[in-house]
Amino acid sequence: MPSIIQIDSAPNSVLSNPLRIGDNALTLMLGPCAVESYEQTRAVAAAVSRAGVRVLRGGAFKPRTSPHTFQGLGLEGLEILRAVADEFGLLVITEALGVEQLPLVSDYADIIQIGSRNMQHYPLLWAAAETGMPIMLKRGFMSTVAEWLAAADHIISRGNERIMLCERGIRSFDNATRNVLDVGAIALLKTTTGFPVIADPSHAVGRSDLVLPAAKAAIAAGADGLIVEFHPDPPTALSDAEQAISADEMDRFVAEIGRIAVAVDRHLPHANYAPAH
Amino acid sequence: MPSIIQIDSAPNSVLSNPLRIGDNALTLMLGPCAVESYEQTRAVAAAVSRAGVRVLRGGAFKPRTSPHTFQGLGLEGLEILRAVADEFGLLVITEALGVEQLPLVSDYADIIQIGSRNMQHYPLLWAAAETGMPIMLKRGFMSTVAEWLAAADHIISRGNERIMLCERGIRSFDNATRNVLDVGAIALLKTTTGFPVIADPSHAVGRSDLVLPAAKAAIAAGADGLIVEFHPDPPTALSDAEQAISADEMDRFVAEIGRIAVAVDRHLPHANYAPAH
Amino acid sequence: MPSIIQIDSAPNSVLSNPLRIGDNALTLMLGPCAVESYEQTRAVAAAVSRAGVRVLRGGAFKPRTSPHTFQGLGLEGLEILRAVADEFGLLVITEALGVEQLPLVSDYADIIQIGSRNMQHYPLLWAAAETGMPIMLKRGFMSTVAEWLAAADHIISRGNERIMLCERGIRSFDNATRNVLDVGAIALLKTTTGFPVIADPSHAVGRSDLVLPAAKAAIAAGADGLIVEFHPDPPTALSDAEQAISADEMDRFVAEIGRIAVAVDRHLPHANYAPAH
Amino acid sequence: MPSIIQIDSAPNSVLSNPLRIGDNALTLMLGPCAVESYEQTRAVAAAVSRAGVRVLRGGAFKPRTSPHTFQGLGLEGLEILRAVADEFGLLVITEALGVEQLPLVSDYADIIQIGSRNMQHYPLLWAAAETGMPIMLKRGFMSTVAEWLAAADHIISRGNERIMLCERGIRSFDNATRNVLDVGAIALLKTTTGFPVIADPSHAVGRSDLVLPAAKAAIAAGADGLIVEFHPDPPTALSDAEQAISADEMDRFVAEIGRIAVAVDRHLPHANYAPAH
Repeated sequence: MPSIIQIDSAPNSVLSNPLRIGDNALTLMLGPCAVESYEQTRAVAAAVSRAGVRVLRGGAFKPRTSPHTFQGLGLEGLEILRAVADEFGLLVITEALGVEQLPLVSDYADIIQIGSRNMQHYPLLWAAAETGMPIMLKRGFMSTVAEWLAAADHIISRGNERIMLCERGIRSFDNATRNVLDVGAIALLKTTTGFPVIADPSHAVGRSDLVLPAAKAAIAAGADGLIVEFHPDPPTALSDAEQAISADEMDRFVAEIGRIAVAVDRHLPHANYAPAH
Repeated sequence: MPSIIQIDSAPNSVLSNPLRIGDNALTLMLGPCAVESYEQTRAVAAAVSRAGVRVLRGGAFKPRTSPHTFQGLGLEGLEILRAVADEFGLLVITEALGVEQLPLVSDYADIIQIGSRNMQHYPLLWAAAETGMPIMLKRGFMSTVAEWLAAADHIISRGNERIMLCERGIRSFDNATRNVLDVGAIALLKTTTGFPVIADPSHAVGRSDLVLPAAKAAIAAGADGLIVEFHPDPPTALSDAEQAISADEMDRFVAEIGRIAVAVDRHLPHANYAPAH
Repeated sequence: MPSIIQIDSAPNSVLSNPLRIGDNALTLMLGPCAVESYEQTRAVAAAVSRAGVRVLRGGAFKPRTSPHTFQGLGLEGLEILRAVADEFGLLVITEALGVEQLPLVSDYADIIQIGSRNMQHYPLLWAAAETGMPIMLKRGFMSTVAEWLAAADHIISRGNERIMLCERGIRSFDNATRNVLDVGAIALLKTTTGFPVIADPSHAVGRSDLVLPAAKAAIAAGADGLIVEFHPDPPTALSDAEQAISADEMDRFVAEIGRIAVAVDRHLPHANYAPAH
Repeated sequence: MPSIIQIDSAPNSVLSNPLRIGDNALTLMLGPCAVESYEQTRAVAAAVSRAGVRVLRGGAFKPRTSPHTFQGLGLEGLEILRAVADEFGLLVITEALGVEQLPLVSDYADIIQIGSRNMQHYPLLWAAAETGMPIMLKRGFMSTVAEWLAAADHIISRGNERIMLCERGIRSFDNATRNVLDVGAIALLKTTTGFPVIADPSHAVGRSDLVLPAAKAAIAAGADGLIVEFHPDPPTALSDAEQAISADEMDRFVAEIGRIAVAVDRHLPHANYAPAH
C-alpha cells in the first residue's frame, strides 16, 4: 500500500506543489456539511483559503435519515463547489451517494468520499475504484476495523490503491455525545497498515463545543488529517447545525491543531502556501 | 399503512390463492443463503414445497465482506431460482445489491430484498420503491428502530407502501452468538406500526443449532413470518455454512414453528396448500 | 453442574412438594419491583397465589442509579415479604445489594438474587455462595456470556452449585426499548451448559405492553422460568412504574405463558398446586 | 464541586508541596497492574520517582473475571506499596474491591480507586465516601456519562466531594482493541462539570504499543491526568501482561506526554519535584 497519496493541484490553482496526504504535513479538509448556496460556500472557502488549508469539503448529495429533510443541491452543488474551489485554488472532496452519481462527482471533485452508511455498499466501492480517483472511505458507524479494511480491499480489488480511511466516530450505548471517536483505531491503523487516516471530529462528537478537543485527540493519536464542518452562520445551517463551527473561528481552530501537530513531530503546511487573496 | 401485503401467485403456479403477508397465517421464506447450482437449489425447493411453504429464498448477488469470497452466480442464479420456483409453484425473494441490478431482479423475483448493509443506501430504496414490487427491508445490523422506519419512509416517499420489515439481529458487544435477535423490536413494531414483520433467525444467531429456538422466539414475540437458510449439505455451503440447517430437517423445523404459531393464535397455511409433487 | 435446583417449601407452607427449577415445569417468580407496603405486597402475593405461581419476587434493598430516588424499605421490606409469602405458602426471592446484607437476606428469603450491576462484584458472589442458598445470578447488562459463566464460576469456586442464570436484557445502541432480551443467549446456555435459565422480560423491554410478548419469546427460546414485575396499581409504583403489569392481569399473563410452554413440551405446574385461599 | 483536589504529601515524604489534581499541572499515576513482589514494585517505583511522577498505582486486591487467575497479594500487597512509596516519597492509589477492604485500604493508600466493575456497587460508594479520602471513580465499561455522574452523586450524598472521574475505555462491538477510549466524554466532562478527569489508556486499548498514542489523545482532549500500567518485565506480568509498558520506557513516555501537555497550555510538574534518590 502506498503510504502517501499524492494529488496534483487543479490546473488553475495558484499552487504548484501537489498535495501529499499521509505525509508529515497534516491534511485539513474544511467546509460546510452541505452546499447550500454560492454565497455560503464562498464564505467558507474564503476562510479555508485564509487559514492556509488546501481542501474544501462540502456535500452536494446528502444521505439523510428521513426523506423529508434537505437532500442537497445535487449538480448545482457540485458546480458551486468547483467554482469557489477554483477561485481560491482549493481541492474538492465530496460524497458520491450512489453509483449513478460517480460520473458527475468525478468530473467536479478531486477526492471521492464514500460515506459511513455506504461503507459496505460494494457496487459503489467497485465503481468508485474504477474512476482511478483518490477515495476517502469513511468507517461505517458500527463497522469493525476488520470490516473497514475488507471494504478497502474491495476497492483495491478493482485496481485502485489511492485510499485514505476516515474514522468518524462509532455508535455506542451512550448518547451523551453523537458518537465515540475511536482514537485507538486511529493508532492501530497507523501502527499496522500503510493507509493515511483522516478523522472526522464533527460527526464523532456532534456538538460544536467538543469538536476542537476531539480533533486534537485525533491528531495526538496519529491521524494524518481532519475533515471538519464549518458554516458562516451555524444556527441557520440546513443540516448538522449543532456540530458546525463558525467560519470565523477557523483560524483559531487551525492554529490550535497546529500546536498539537508540532507536539507529535508533524506540522501544518502553511509555510508552503501562498494565499490566493 | 396496509397491514397485509397480498402477492399473486405466479401464472404457472398450481396455487390459486394469493399469498397474504401479515395475515393470521404465518409466511415462511426458506432456501439457501446463496444459489450455488441448479441441483442444490432444486433440492432445497423440493423440501420447501414438501413442507407446505410458499416462498423460496436464495441469493444470486451476495454482499460479502471480503472481495475474495464467493460473490454469487448473478444472472445465472436468478434463472435457477425462477426455474425451480416455477417447477414447484413457489414465489421467489432475492436481494438486489445495487440500483443497477433492479431491472434484472424485478424480472425474476416476486419480492425484492434490501439487505442489512444497504438499509440506508437511499438510491437503492428509491429505485426499488419505483418498481412497485413488494419489498422486504432488512434492518441494518447497527440501525435503530427509528432509523429503520425512516428508511421505510424513504420507500413510501416514492409511492410504494408494500413494505415488510425484517429483523435479522443487531450487533452487540458479545460474540457468543453472531448477532442478537431483537424480539422486543418485533413486539414494538407489531404494537405501534402496521408493517408486517419477518424475522431472520439464521443471521441473528449464526449457529445452526440455535436457529430453531430463535425462530420460535420470534414467532412468540409476534413476528408474521420467518426467512431461514437451508442447504442440502450445510458443511459444503459456499457461504454461511455454519448457520444453515440441513434441508432434511425442514419438515421438523416447520412443524415446530407451527406449534408455536398455534400458541399465539396464528397458524401455518398448510391446509390451504396442495403440494405440487 | 446439577441441571435442576430443588428448593424445599417453607415449613408453614401448604405445599408439600419441593420446587424444582430447571425441570420440565416452568418456574415463575412474580411480584413487585420494590416492596412498598404490606398492603401493596399482600395484594400482589394474593394474585401470585391465585395464579398458581409459587415464588414471590420483591425488592427490599433497591440499587438505584440516583441517590435521590427510593432506595427500598430494607429490613421492613424483608419482614413484609416473608409475612405475606408465609400467609400464601410462597417462596421468596429478593436481592442482596451488598455483602453486609447477606445475613439478613438469607434469614428472610429462599433464593438470593444477585443483581445486574453486581454480577462482577466478586466479594458479594463469594459471600452469597457461602450461605449455601440457591442463587439467581443476573447477567450484567454489559456482560458477555463468557463473563457471566465466569461469574458463576466464582460462586462455584466457593462450594455452591445451586445457581440459576437470569437473562434480563443487554444494553444496545438503540433506546427504542430499555434493553434487548438476548434470546440467543438463552438458547445457547440451554444448549451448552446445565444451568437453569430464568428470563426477566420486564427489565428487558421496560414497557408494560411489551412484557408479555418478550416473556413468550424467552420461553419459546428455552428459558426455564420467568421473573416479572407486577403491581396493584402500576402508575403509582415507586420504581419501574412504566414496566410493571397490573396484578389484575396476572391470571391472563400466566395463562398465555402456559400456552407457549405446552408448545415447547413444557408446562406450568398448576395442577400440583392447592391454592391456600 | 471543587474543581481541584488537594492531597497532602505523606509526612515522611521529601516533598513539601501538596499534590493538586485538576490543576494546570497534569497528574500521572504510574505503576504495575498488580503488586506481585517487593522487588517488582520497587523497580517500578524507582522509575516513577526518576520520571518526576508523584503517584504510584498498583493493585493489591484484583477483580478478576475468572476465579482461577491471580487475585492479588491482599494485605501483603498494600504493605509493599506503602513501603516503596514511602521510600521514594510517592503517594499511593489502589483499588478497594469491597466494603470489607476499606479499613485496610484507607490505612495504606492516599487515594481510593473504585473499579469499573464496581461503579454501581452503591454500598462500596457509600462506604468509600465515608472515609473522607479522595476517590477515583472509574467509569463502568458500559455505563453512560449520566450514570457515571449519578454514581459520583452517590458519593457526594454521603458527604465526600473529593472525587476524580477516570475514563478507562468503553466496550464496543469491535475487539480490534480491548475497549474504546471515549475522548468525547473527557471533553464533555471538562466542559460541563467541575470534576478532575483522569484517563486510563492501558485498559482502553489493551495493547502496549497503542498506550502512548491513546494517552496523548486523552491529554489533547482535556484530561487532567493519566493512570498507566508499567512493569519491569511485561511478558512476565501476572495480569494484563499485554498492555503493560516496560518500566525502562517510562522516561520517554513521560517526556512525550509532556510535549502534548504544553500544546494544550498545561505542563508536567517536574520542575516542582526534587527526586528522592
